[in-house]
Amino acid sequence: MSKLVIVGTVAFDAIETPFGKTDKILGGAATFIGLAASHFNVDSSIVSVVGGDFPQEYLDLLSDKKIDISGIEIVKEGKTFFWSGLYHNDMNSRDTLATELNVLADFNPVVPVNYRDAKVVMLGNLHPLVQMSVIEQMAEKPDLIVLDTMNFWMDNALDDLLKVIKKIDVITINDEEARQLTGEYSLVVAARKIHEMGPKYVVIKKGDLLFHNDDVFYAPALPLEEVFDPTGAGDTFAGGFAGYLAGTNDFSFENMKNAVIYGSTLASFCVEKFGTERMMNMTDEEVFDRLKQFKSLTQFEIELS
Amino acid sequence: MSKLVIVGTVAFDAIETPFGKTDKILGGAATFIGLAASHFNVDSSIVSVVGGDFPQEYLDLLSDKKIDISGIEIVKEGKTFFWSGLYHNDMNSRDTLATELNVLADFNPVVPVNYRDAKVVMLGNLHPLVQMSVIEQMAEKPDLIVLDTMNFWMDNALDDLLKVIKKIDVITINDEEARQLTGEYSLVVAARKIHEMGPKYVVIKKGDLLFHNDDVFYAPALPLEEVFDPTGAGDTFAGGFAGYLAGTNDFSFENMKNAVIYGSTLASFCVEKFGTERMMNMTDEEVFDRLKQFKSLTQFEIELS
Repeated sequence: MSKLVIVGTVAFDAIETPFGKTDKILGGAATFIGLAASHFNVDSSIVSVVGGDFPQEYLDLLSDKKIDISGIEIVKEGKTFFWSGLYHNDMNSRDTLATELNVLADFNPVVPVNYRDAKVVMLGNLHPLVQMSVIEQMAEKPDLIVLDTMNFWMDNALDDLLKVIKKIDVITINDEEARQLTGEYSLVVAARKIHEMGPKYVVIKKGDLLFHNDDVFYAPALPLEEVFDPTGAGDTFAGGFAGYLAGTNDFSFENMKNAVIYGSTLASFCVEKFGTERMMNMTDEEVFDRLKQFKSLTQFEIELS
Repeated sequence: MSKLVIVGTVAFDAIETPFGKTDKILGGAATFIGLAASHFNVDSSIVSVVGGDFPQEYLDLLSDKKIDISGIEIVKEGKTFFWSGLYHNDMNSRDTLATELNVLADFNPVVPVNYRDAKVVMLGNLHPLVQMSVIEQMAEKPDLIVLDTMNFWMDNALDDLLKVIKKIDVITINDEEARQLTGEYSLVVAARKIHEMGPKYVVIKKGDLLFHNDDVFYAPALPLEEVFDPTGAGDTFAGGFAGYLAGTNDFSFENMKNAVIYGSTLASFCVEKFGTERMMNMTDEEVFDRLKQFKSLTQFEIELS
């Protein structure tokens, strides 16, 4: 089975949306990535850190999904990373109410020895130095390194970020971040500039646009009746994308299109309930049905011969 | 050949974008609709009004595209409708600098007698009473009536608009207008409410979403390097949509998907130059090539069996 190394936060989230609010629940980029990737035939390992306050029950939830958790360091005397946010009525914008780094402040990722030969590495949104450290620990160059990042690192650690970007194959960022990173408004031009920074593939999360040289592929967001909680959608996309590619072991552009579709499909489940709840209880049949919806949403029959 | 009746403005536009500005040039909803529809095997007639200041040369341009102009009334002593707008840097928002109704203020549309048996009617953005008058002049119920409208009529003539909406088959509006018309934020729910108002098909122009009962189809905007001038894009979409359906004489949901693709494709040309310039000089081969781009942008190969 293909191995997938995932680095990212495993955290507590407290979320408020127009539909309700939660206490501290399980969250974090690596959590969502891992849950999404667990849908595929891959042997995933999460590299992360939590505090002594992190419930064994949450770790068991991940283990139950066949995710290796030996790379999740537990700092007994420390507290787990905590994020709290409030989503506005449009569900597109949010205020961060609290960010407590806690054990994340001194996080030194350690990739488990038996995963250092993984062919696929998924670098979740974290300090670029942490992402770089994971790359450097790999025994040989992976077939595919996917990086997710955000504007915060462009503002605060741009040099480090650019060094990591040079080493990766696929970057996933949203449209505003692509514009910030390149100073270009046109996403086509922005993608080209990002290609020049290193990544052969650029995924811009607006719907989801996949760029590779002059080729573009687009997967829209499924038009859902209600988005209940957007938290983790981007991570779930990334996890589905990397998980599908690791599981199929085919890194061609054509197969990346399928990976984008799987990523979008899984993300559409993620937003239906608070936190990880929906991802914990998603059946293969439900995924299959939604892939069919995706197909009827986007596929057409014009003959071009 | 199938007949298509088009009602809408034939006008002067003066446009300013970050890329330049124009003097008064040929514009108007019916102009763009007609040019787009002329790409298909249809016999189109434009119902509109212009003033004595309208150049014969512009009318000849439409005739050259095999568009019937016998329904364009010329009010010798009047002036042609004039619109002027300034697009902001994002090319999505604009300021209207001038709107001079002129001859449009007293416009009584007259559908040419030999087009009153047309099977397809395209009601371009105009006062709903004008749109209604065109419907009432048709000899028998057309197979398909498509209506384009905008927030201005929701603000100023809602009752009249709702009466027209009850009589049509397809409505094309943008996402904000769909929300305004229904008071629903979710576009899925908004589309359902619009179904209940009359139209069996709802096209929401955000990318382009086509709703019919529980079916949804989505065509993204092609990611272009630069949008040069968005004026007329929505009308061009509508003209391509209605023209394709009239030309194929197939009003099924499956064929409407193709109509959406053609509409989006033609609109992607429209925005490449000022006004109608690009639409006047678009070859079949260029359209074919762009349809291929559309296909590679959106089609994928996941087998669902």
